[in-house]
Amino acid sequence: MFSNRIRIMVEFGDCDPADIVFYPNYFRWFDRSTTALFRAAGLPLKQLFKSHGILGIPIVDARARFVVPSTFGQEVEVESAVIEWRKSSFVIGHKFYRDGVLLLEGTETRVWAAAHPTDAHRMQGVPVPKQVIQRLSGKKTKRQK
Amino acid sequence: MFSNRIRIMVEFGDCDPADIVFYPNYFRWFDRSTTALFRAAGLPLKQLFKSHGILGIPIVDARARFVVPSTFGQEVEVESAVIEWRKSSFVIGHKFYRDGVLLLEGTETRVWAAAHPTDAHRMQGVPVPKQVIQRLSGKKTKRQK
Amino acid sequence: MFSNRIRIMVEFGDCDPADIVFYPNYFRWFDRSTTALFRAAGLPLKQLFKSHGILGIPIVDARARFVVPSTFGQEVEVESAVIEWRKSSFVIGHKFYRDGVLLLEGTETRVWAAAHPTDAHRMQGVPVPKQVIQRLSGKKTKRQK
Amino acid sequence: MFSNRIRIMVEFGDCDPADIVFYPNYFRWFDRSTTALFRAAGLPLKQLFKSHGILGIPIVDARARFVVPSTFGQEVEVESAVIEWRKSSFVIGHKFYRDGVLLLEGTETRVWAAAHPTDAHRMQGVPVPKQVIQRLSGKKTKRQK
Repeated sequence: MFSNRIRIMVEFGDCDPADIVFYPNYFRWFDRSTTALFRAAGLPLKQLFKSHGILGIPIVDARARFVVPSTFGQEVEVESAVIEWRKSSFVIGHKFYRDGVLLLEGTETRVWAAAHPTDAHRMQGVPVPKQVIQRLSGKKTKRQK
Repeated sequence: MFSNRIRIMVEFGDCDPADIVFYPNYFRWFDRSTTALFRAAGLPLKQLFKSHGILGIPIVDARARFVVPSTFGQEVEVESAVIEWRKSSFVIGHKFYRDGVLLLEGTETRVWAAAHPTDAHRMQGVPVPKQVIQRLSGKKTKRQK
Repeated sequence: MFSNRIRIMVEFGDCDPADIVFYPNYFRWFDRSTTALFRAAGLPLKQLFKSHGILGIPIVDARARFVVPSTFGQEVEVESAVIEWRKSSFVIGHKFYRDGVLLLEGTETRVWAAAHPTDAHRMQGVPVPKQVIQRLSGKKTKRQK
Repeated sequence: MFSNRIRIMVEFGDCDPADIVFYPNYFRWFDRSTTALFRAAGLPLKQLFKSHGILGIPIVDARARFVVPSTFGQEVEVESAVIEWRKSSFVIGHKFYRDGVLLLEGTETRVWAAAHPTDAHRMQGVPVPKQVIQRLSGKKTKRQK
């Protein structure tokens, strides 16, 4: 399983009056880490969409379990990997750590979506290309900024 | 079960380059709708925390299933209610509609959290007061802005 | 001068650890109030862009002077109007009030932007249509949600 | 003049339906770059507030002039420095570059704010300590993540 790690500095504006990260921001970072995962696998999303005629990888399910809060000035590390491949969708797992301690974990389920053949305003799931699955199923773990 | 509805106008800045709501914003609206739910039940959060010596209602789990996307200029309606009471936590259910069509649904699990008796920097779950449960278990459905 | 007023409820997640609105959110509300201003003038932006072949009204300058902070649970009122018309751009003035007290004031300068005639990836300012100027220069003050 | 540079990767969720950065996010990055500037000068804000009895450095004015837009996947560099010291406030200048090209520039005016002597709920500007001014007026330019 190919996984990737990014580091995120928690900023003042990411936190709420309780002085901890306002939780929707974690999902913003899920999205950021998914982007970084594809990039680290040699599949930058923008080019990938163009080369495969894909409109995007829209989300159909997102969930998170919050264990330890974080606050302004702390740096967290996010490890992400595709943990399940379905026909035209896939599940990305995200785990947040600080000093080796699990802070939260969650998943995003996304669809490999092309334009609908007869209705340009709609999308439809199509099979994920083998090349994409192979690249994201590799053994290597990359670490990037 | 006491439930509350709020209306949310999807703004330009809520949407991403795919021209639909960037999904972390839905969790921002979960939080907004939870605030409105308590207010509609006669339990505005700020005063509630003060009167019960509570630090907040931090989140321990959040999840959403996305069915139909929304875009700039559309108005959505969010219906929220506490759907489960546990000892020191509770689950709020949120459903988003437009013209009666379900757009997404999700839940937030939150803890009724007081200061730790011996460590001011920590929080601990304490039993939710009966008055709070009663107010949020009433039969009436309110609709507010 | 045609002006419009909207009301904004300050949410928990709009505030920072200092327990006041994190200031970039005010610019988010500038954008929201500009959208509402055009809508109130009978010129909803999405349709306006289509009907006039406009790509958007990108911002070239934004500024704000902050006088009184706001916090979670307070409602503010934003009054907006076009205060200056230039050849292919215009300045929108925004004023925030609570109970008649000025909280902040600022401006956005935006360009009426069409696709560049020979380079589809670029935009260029074109003269603002007279109809748009007339509608936004009317005498009436509207108040909408 | 002591200046600091940070790099920011523009994420998908930072961009709007026009496929460029939604402009309020630039002010979020102003705030991030100010935090990094103080940290680079050996004055991390959290500790600084505690050691000087300061409540924060609230903003009284913010402005930006936008020259070239940025989009998803592009990396920008932000250079920040205190460009003016007043009695109890100061002006931070921010410049954004990509490949040496100026993308936008702006300023934040912030107050060095202590608790009001007789009203704990209010803040008041107090003189900026000489040590802070010296550190932020140094000659060195640091570059950090």
